[in-house]
Amino acid sequence: MYPDSIKNLIESFKYLPGIGEKTAERLAFSVLELEDEQADLFRSSIKDVKMKVHKCKRCNSLTEDDECYICKDESRDNGTLCVVEDTKNVILFEKLGVFHGKYHVLNGLISPLEGINPEDIGLETLIDRITKEKFKEIIFAFRPSIEGETTSLYIKKILEDMNLKITRLASGVPMGADMEYLDSLTLERALNDRKEIE
Amino acid sequence: MYPDSIKNLIESFKYLPGIGEKTAERLAFSVLELEDEQADLFRSSIKDVKMKVHKCKRCNSLTEDDECYICKDESRDNGTLCVVEDTKNVILFEKLGVFHGKYHVLNGLISPLEGINPEDIGLETLIDRITKEKFKEIIFAFRPSIEGETTSLYIKKILEDMNLKITRLASGVPMGADMEYLDSLTLERALNDRKEIE
Repeated sequence: MYPDSIKNLIESFKYLPGIGEKTAERLAFSVLELEDEQADLFRSSIKDVKMKVHKCKRCNSLTEDDECYICKDESRDNGTLCVVEDTKNVILFEKLGVFHGKYHVLNGLISPLEGINPEDIGLETLIDRITKEKFKEIIFAFRPSIEGETTSLYIKKILEDMNLKITRLASGVPMGADMEYLDSLTLERALNDRKEIE
Repeated sequence: MYPDSIKNLIESFKYLPGIGEKTAERLAFSVLELEDEQADLFRSSIKDVKMKVHKCKRCNSLTEDDECYICKDESRDNGTLCVVEDTKNVILFEKLGVFHGKYHVLNGLISPLEGINPEDIGLETLIDRITKEKFKEIIFAFRPSIEGETTSLYIKKILEDMNLKITRLASGVPMGADMEYLDSLTLERALNDRKEIE
């Protein structure tokens, strides 16, 4: 029904998450209408992303160099390390511009149910880095979840004797939230973590 | 914030319709996780779509050859021509498998409001084809709209003296529709086009 190349392009779009048949068809047709330069950039950036992008050898985030631009940035606070589960979180934090220390990216979170064990998420590199660099504080910035808790507690135990301040993101009621849609876990956490008004 | 190649890939996805910043970011990251062969197919099909796909010289649909597979298919009904506004409609009809004649694809519909005049939509090729080939019936399969009506009437006028049966798709209440959501135009058309129960 489709010319072969359009069929292949539709298949390619369908490899991507959240893209079904109809969307893939619509996108494939829209590629036909791209300017030549746009199509060239599209192709070359797919190639570059696959060829050039790899993990930063220090923090495990994504980079095209040996070390990522955050690791190389001398002006950042070298005393604070924010541990996240995914590079996307580094980008999110940087976009929001609310953190000025260093990052370390794990390969996910410990999840016995899904068969993801401590040795699968790159903890060795993290511990190794913490023993070598002079951090004062380690912040766990995982999504609030059983997996996040498990991973935090596991790493905290390993770091116990290292005289470090170990913290996690506060969890509770998000700004602007509609109270009636709060789930019980969030409310419980917000109550437990309540702060005195100064 | 992003490595250059990821940034370029995000920009590329944003060229496509309906893809905003967040979706483009999500898709760009998912390209990182494609198998190498998948990424290669993705790249080459973008190239092929731009290089190989062009309009069928007979019906103006998309093809990689001189003529599309429908024009070349001798087993189809050569007496009936279905005129559509877009290649996507040919594919839709073929998927549904409800039409077995030939197609002709216009470059859109006449729309004075948007400055699209009769000479912009490739009518000359259509008329030329109709005078040369031996059709008995021409079916206009445009979306029900002012533009569709205008285009049908305009072409009908040109074909007036050619002894052809000229029809349009029936319009009315779609199967399974919820009557209370019908708009007045559809209802009016459904009433005007009402059929005797046999």
